Formats: sequence, C-alpha cells, structure tokens
Amino acid sequence: MITVEEAERIVLSQLRDYGVEAIGFEHAAGRILAEDIVADRNLPPFNRVTVDGIAISARSFSSGNWHFKIAGTQAAGDQPLNITAGDECVEIMTGAALPPSADTVIRYEDIAIKDGLAEINIEDISIGQNIHFEGADKKRGDVLVKAGRQITAPIVGIAASVGKAELMVKKLPRVVVITSGDELVNVEDCPGDYQIRRSNNYTVSAVLQKQGVAVSTLHIPDDELVTEQVLEQCINNYDVLILSGGVSMGKFDYIPKALENLQITKLFHKVKQRPGKPFWFGGHANGAVVFAFPGNPVATFMCLHKYFLNWLYAGLGVSVTKPIYAVLASDFAFKPDLSYFLQVALSHDEQARLVATPVEGNGSGDFANLADSDAFIELPAGRDNFMAGELFKVISF
Amino acid sequence: MITVEEAERIVLSQLRDYGVEAIGFEHAAGRILAEDIVADRNLPPFNRVTVDGIAISARSFSSGNWHFKIAGTQAAGDQPLNITAGDECVEIMTGAALPPSADTVIRYEDIAIKDGLAEINIEDISIGQNIHFEGADKKRGDVLVKAGRQITAPIVGIAASVGKAELMVKKLPRVVVITSGDELVNVEDCPGDYQIRRSNNYTVSAVLQKQGVAVSTLHIPDDELVTEQVLEQCINNYDVLILSGGVSMGKFDYIPKALENLQITKLFHKVKQRPGKPFWFGGHANGAVVFAFPGNPVATFMCLHKYFLNWLYAGLGVSVTKPIYAVLASDFAFKPDLSYFLQVALSHDEQARLVATPVEGNGSGDFANLADSDAFIELPAGRDNFMAGELFKVISF
Repeated sequence: MITVEEAERIVLSQLRDYGVEAIGFEHAAGRILAEDIVADRNLPPFNRVTVDGIAISARSFSSGNWHFKIAGTQAAGDQPLNITAGDECVEIMTGAALPPSADTVIRYEDIAIKDGLAEINIEDISIGQNIHFEGADKKRGDVLVKAGRQITAPIVGIAASVGKAELMVKKLPRVVVITSGDELVNVEDCPGDYQIRRSNNYTVSAVLQKQGVAVSTLHIPDDELVTEQVLEQCINNYDVLILSGGVSMGKFDYIPKALENLQITKLFHKVKQRPGKPFWFGGHANGAVVFAFPGNPVATFMCLHKYFLNWLYAGLGVSVTKPIYAVLASDFAFKPDLSYFLQVALSHDEQARLVATPVEGNGSGDFANLADSDAFIELPAGRDNFMAGELFKVISF
Repeated sequence: MITVEEAERIVLSQLRDYGVEAIGFEHAAGRILAEDIVADRNLPPFNRVTVDGIAISARSFSSGNWHFKIAGTQAAGDQPLNITAGDECVEIMTGAALPPSADTVIRYEDIAIKDGLAEINIEDISIGQNIHFEGADKKRGDVLVKAGRQITAPIVGIAASVGKAELMVKKLPRVVVITSGDELVNVEDCPGDYQIRRSNNYTVSAVLQKQGVAVSTLHIPDDELVTEQVLEQCINNYDVLILSGGVSMGKFDYIPKALENLQITKLFHKVKQRPGKPFWFGGHANGAVVFAFPGNPVATFMCLHKYFLNWLYAGLGVSVTKPIYAVLASDFAFKPDLSYFLQVALSHDEQARLVATPVEGNGSGDFANLADSDAFIELPAGRDNFMAGELFKVISF
C-alpha cells in the first residue's frame, strides 16, 4: 500500500491542460486567468483631483495671495480649464483633471467662497496636495494582474477599468460524479430499514460548483454489465470521473474490474490513510482521469479536497500555494500506521495563531460532524500520539 | 465626524428581517439555514458493517472455533441473514446491516475462503470490531445542523441524507447597486482623456454574487432631477441601495440632497476613516436601507466588506463570528486622526501565526493593488505609528 505522499505525487503526475476560452469578465470570478491584464493607460490616466475644492498655483499663495477669483467650475470628466492669471482658481470636483497651470488643490473645508472669490483659511499648504498624479500607481503597459491568478472581485473591477470586456481563462474539465450501490435511495424516497439516502453526489457537486466546475451526476446499480456500460460512456464523454463507492473488496464492487476492462490504467488502489484507504486512481489513454473514492461520505469529502482539488488547480496552472499549518489544540492518539485526517474546527488564538480543535466524533463514518468542522488536520503515519501545541498541515474546506 | 465604532453601531442598529423561503437543498449552499436539520433516524440507522468480510459470533471464535461455514452472502441494502449455528458466518459487504446473531466482523484480509468455509488467520479479534453501531453518531430527533448556519457542502449532504429535499432559508434583500458621475463610461467604450471606465458596480456585484445575493445595477448621470427620480424608484423597488460615488461635497454630488428630499433619514454622513470618509448611511420609513459609499474603488470595496456584509449577515441571524486579528509584518506610519484600512496580504508564519504584510501602494486610490491583497488591516485612529509584531483586526475578502 502506498503512502499519502506517494499518492499525491502520482495524482500530480497526471495533470491535464484543457486549453483556454474567452468569457465575459462579469462571469469570470473564480476562474483562472489565462492572460495578463495590462494597463491600457497610465493609472491614474491624468493628474486626478482627490477632493472637492479649488485648484490654484502654490507659488501665487506662497507669494502672499490668499484670495483667488473663481475663473470657472470643472466637474469630473470635463476638459481642464485654463487659469491665466496667478490670482485665479478653478472650482474643481473630485475625479476631475487638474488644470495645467495649477499644481495644488485646497478642499472646500479650508476655504470660504463669497461673490465669486475664494478665501483660503489655512496657513500651511504643500505643493501638489490633494492630487493623485498621472501614472503614480501604474504606467501604461504595466501588468496589473498576472496570468495564472484565480479571478477575484477586485480583478473583475480591474478588468472593467482597463476595458477588458472579455477575459481569456483556463477551460475547466467536464466532470461526472458517479455513485453506486443498491443500498442507496433517492433523497425524496423513504429508505427501507437497511437502506440509506444518496448524499455524496450532492456534497461533491456543491464543492465543485463553488469552484465554478459544472458537474453531471449518475447513479449505477450493483450490476456488472451496467457498471461497465455506464463507465464506458463516461470515459468517452467526460474528462474526469469522480466515483464514490464500490471500490472496496466487496463481492459487488464491480468498479475496479470494470475500469480495468475499459483499459483504464490503475495507477494505485489503496492509500495508507484514514479515511479513504480504498481510494483507486487511474487514467485512460484518451486523457480521461478517474478518481474512485470510497463511499463513506467523510472519505469522499476528504479525498475530494486532498487529491482532486489539488490536481485541478495544479493542472489549471495556479501558482502553488504553500501548505497551511495549524496548532493542534489537544492531545490526540491514533494507533494504526496510517495518515489520519482528523476533522477539526479552525480558529485564531489571542496570539493570532491558527488553532485546530478536534471535533468529537466516532471516526471516519460520522458525516454529521463535518457540519461543525472547517478542515482536516493531517496527522502523519508512523506515530501514535500527537501532542497539543504541535503543528500539522491542514486542509480547510 | 463619527468614529468607525459609532458608524458600525449605527449600521447594526438598522437590521432588517426579510423572512424565510423554502428552496431545493441542492441550490442552498451559501444561504442561511432558517430551520434545524434533524436526524430522521438513528445514525447509523442500523448496526452498519464497515469492511468487506465475514460476520461471526465472537463467543464461537473465543471458544476455539477458527472455521466458519458461509451460510449466505449479504450486500449493503439487504435484509440481514440469520445465522443459526455458532460455526456459521455471513459473507458481508461494507454498508450492510449486521445479522442479529452476529456481533463481530472479520475483514477479507484476515481470512481465507475455500469450499464455502472461511478460515480466520488472525489471533486477536475484539467483539464488536468493524461495526458502526446504530445510533453511535446521532439519535433520531437529534439536531444535526442548527438554524442560523451558513449552508456548506457538507450541510447539503446532511440534508440529503435525512431526506430534506427542501430547506427553509432566510430570504435575501433585493439589492441595487447605483453608480453615478458623468466622467464614467462603459467598459466597451474608449474613455475620453479625462474620463474613466465604470468598474465599481462590477466589483460590488462580484462580491455580492459570491454571497448568493442577486444584484441589479444602475448608472445615473450628474443631473439633479434624474438622480431624484431614479432614487425614488429604487427606494420603492429594492430593500437595499448601495451607491458608489456622488457623496462628497462636490457641486454635482446631488445624491445626499436627493436622498433627503426622498425622506430618507440620514443616520450619518462621514466617518473618521480612510478610505471611505464621505460614507453616507440612512434609511427610509418603508424599511429601505441606503449605503452610499464614496466612488473611490478601494473605498467602496472596503466599506462594502466592513459595513454592508456585516450588516447583511447580522440581519440574517448568522451567529456572530469573533473578529480575526493578524500580526502586522512591518512598521507602518499613518498621521491623520482617522482609522486607516491598510491593504495587506495574509499568510501564516512557521508558528502558524496569521501575518499581515502591507501591500505597497499610493494610498486609497490604488485599486490595482487590491488584486495582490487578501484583506484590510484596521489601524485605529488616535495613533500615528504601528509597529511590526502588533496585532490588529483584519477584514479578509
């Protein structure tokens, strides 16, 4: 059986590039940018006034002139007015372009206006005050956002500001989530005494929808022939198959055999981890990738985050983020020689340290506890006892 | 001018309750749960086998019996078989219900099967092993998820597992985002020398869409009459107006006057903060709430997170989360007697402490830097110098 680290390495050896596509910038949040966003002008594009008030020449003020005749009013968007005399000013609004002969702006709070004359009420002014100078932030041609970034709300705004109505983004894989097992009934149905309702497909879909990945879902019964037929169609129509259930050693676990019959190369089956030990991973020559997770809801959820999402973002070229570590809040013992992914609630203590508090539960089957958890903390194999205060990697969700 | 704390208190005094609605659980992620999700059965609902193998009576094994005749095979979902003799076993699959006369499960890895006889290859077994007992996680009627929680992917799965195809969730306010200013042109248009493109409405929409809030957008020109007409329609058709721009002291800032003409009570105008000093906040007798933010993109973005989102979640009844503090990574000086919301990039250091590194910029106008920031750190008014290593509140986005 391979270790978590080996499993991770093998999964990340199977990255796929699905190409790029252009989409409207308004719908691009969450997607991965596939081009640089570049400043089309200097930022600001002109000497931009940052308050409402008057624009003057500082030299005129420092030579003793406290009164300025208002030569005109200039709104944001207007062509800048010209002041011809040193004792003139322009009444000017936030966002307007500074008149070429002015170099300083005094805000309304510091002047009094009477009969077309502005009187300055403060003694200290500094040349250039209340002006955001052209190109102070960025120069035309500067890269504002680099390719490879996940598009956030500010990046949507930046795209708007430079006129990028369409953005090139990385294409996402077509994903199908497949559940199996005759013991599973529909949500609307009342399960028999020994049945349960299907839920993993909904959890997986909700996680992927949050990442902007559209998901199809399918359920296959415990039937060898149907299993193989359905999987064959999926291999031909999707880039990624995420299976939940049917990968243990059970007599009715037809999936590993069907996958092999369909020429899907098994890259590993079983990982030294709990939950998720029976995880099966493989790929088809046509490029399709198969993540077959055990049906235990916590196992599916953990493997989805630990393996699938990492694979997805690595393949999309997102700059790899450093792993996050948290302080284990209380001692924890786990005897089997497996990596244990313990459900924890994250918080920050009074020193701003990230603390992971184990959420009580009965091991990997207790799905209800996931509602009270934020993350899994990864307790490595080869040790039995993990002490409060030690740092371990966390996968937040 | 009021402080940030006073502004926060006044904003939070204007909470509104928009009621509840039923929605399909599959579309409920991100919404606020308005009912408890309760276990409809014990969890697990039966003594659930957690491995593939054989079910036996431990007493028979401890009395020296190492060979068990396979009396039948039981899949997940099947009615439990009955073992009548002590030397019989049931070949049983993960997820199946334990036969009533069995109390222990041995996995395939620890047995050898030949001619319908299973031989146990291990010496130590413990009674009850590999069984997840009925009700061990939760009892029928237990609350699995409390009302007031934001619905996550695991909660979607939990709803599915207990058959809640519809969930009661808090209704969201109808929000309109209104920009103003004749200097603003459409994204597709080429701005004149002294114009810029509209972007705040897109940023605000992207933030709110991420919260599941549908948003309408409107742009009003710098015209007193039109401003009042449009705002009047909005007050009658929306629960919340988020305005960006037009709230300074400028001659063409018709918005504060129009809002007062429309009988919208001004609760404050101007806050001792940068960015966002000219923030105007008020409410109408019909319940509508008006957040009028300054047009500076960073100011709008900060105020949206600091004031609007806090107001939204408090009104939706989300259990108040503790503020998060981060360690300032480098000394920072800010002289004006205002709370300063500094753009920072968050990371965790080797002690798992949350560290906030200031993102270089030219003050509140530099919107492009938001792409490289994760959060604002709130440096309080009344101080000029903030030292590396000190802890301050952060608003992450």
